[in-house]
Amino acid sequence: MREQFHGELAGLSEQMVEMTRLAGSAIGRATRALLDADLPLAESVITADEQIDDIQHEIEEKSLELLARQQPVATDLRVIVTGLRMSSDLERMGDLARHVAKLARLRYPNSAIPPELNSTILEMGQAAGRIVAKAGSVIASRDVAMAMELESDDDEMDRLHRDVFRLLLSPDWTHGVETAIDVTLCGRYYERFADHAVSVARRVTYLVTGERAHVSS
Amino acid sequence: MREQFHGELAGLSEQMVEMTRLAGSAIGRATRALLDADLPLAESVITADEQIDDIQHEIEEKSLELLARQQPVATDLRVIVTGLRMSSDLERMGDLARHVAKLARLRYPNSAIPPELNSTILEMGQAAGRIVAKAGSVIASRDVAMAMELESDDDEMDRLHRDVFRLLLSPDWTHGVETAIDVTLCGRYYERFADHAVSVARRVTYLVTGERAHVSS
Repeated sequence: MREQFHGELAGLSEQMVEMTRLAGSAIGRATRALLDADLPLAESVITADEQIDDIQHEIEEKSLELLARQQPVATDLRVIVTGLRMSSDLERMGDLARHVAKLARLRYPNSAIPPELNSTILEMGQAAGRIVAKAGSVIASRDVAMAMELESDDDEMDRLHRDVFRLLLSPDWTHGVETAIDVTLCGRYYERFADHAVSVARRVTYLVTGERAHVSS
Repeated sequence: MREQFHGELAGLSEQMVEMTRLAGSAIGRATRALLDADLPLAESVITADEQIDDIQHEIEEKSLELLARQQPVATDLRVIVTGLRMSSDLERMGDLARHVAKLARLRYPNSAIPPELNSTILEMGQAAGRIVAKAGSVIASRDVAMAMELESDDDEMDRLHRDVFRLLLSPDWTHGVETAIDVTLCGRYYERFADHAVSVARRVTYLVTGERAHVSS
């Protein structure tokens, strides 16, 4: 009985890892769609977000069922409740990747991103991919040291985000206000994507150590 | 025993209503700080956010304790788990009000908002205040009809948000890219604030009717 219960908890954890895979794929493809003005790719990201939402609903229903049927206490209870929180973060990361893809779609056949920002946005997309992959490993392994690494990955994302603003505000900016708005929102989507991944890692750390890191954004 | 339990559930609900009051006060004061370039007011909003975070932590701990001690099933279980979700939304609304206040602080002694956008931003602040107050009433009353009203309040917020973009993109825009960035982010903060309030109302509706509205943003 108890073994079966822990099997079910492991199942929830695997579903969350699957969410990180889907969110990672989504942000990677959204970034390519954005930089290459690739409409079918953008559409595919927008459509695929439903899968992430569906897994979140499954996790929610399964968690409620486990709480009702198994009446867990102490650590098991915290694992389930924390899982609910993490699945919300991961669902939101899917939304943010979708927002990037929608921006690509909105400006098609043009690219929303001017050439001099391409490499920074590409790096933000790559950083987002690394962070979400690491969040998946942290969920699977409960490796607190790896969870700490996400903090410095997030610092890198913040550095790239500042680069975006620096380029927007440089006297050489010739792309007007509309593109500045697009780039501003886009930068915010990547930054928030990383914040949610950090939040996932912090929740795992809290589960393992009982110490709460302050989550700010 | 059971009566005491329902008293404790009511207590959680009251704490969430208190969170809506604090978030409402925060977004109202942040809006004034932004439009009047009022630094002490901005600082007070930034500092006060901790109170909202503290209540969320209390709700989280109390909810875990109730789950462990009372082993609720069915509706009672859903009430607690949904409450955890709603308290996350409300905590995030506090963060977004803080972001608005931080923007006011960043541009002090200037106002981040140019005069021709003052009335639109003021209206966004007022709409945000109405929406969060209504979310509080919905939590207290579980009034599904009132929860529906938040959807049209949110449409009003979206309309104001489109107005912001229209003004930013008008040929008369003379305030440069930096101000455009500030206004873009600011508009996004108000819009997300309202989205989270709508999400709270939808969660209450789901509790009462068992029917899930699709939450997108």
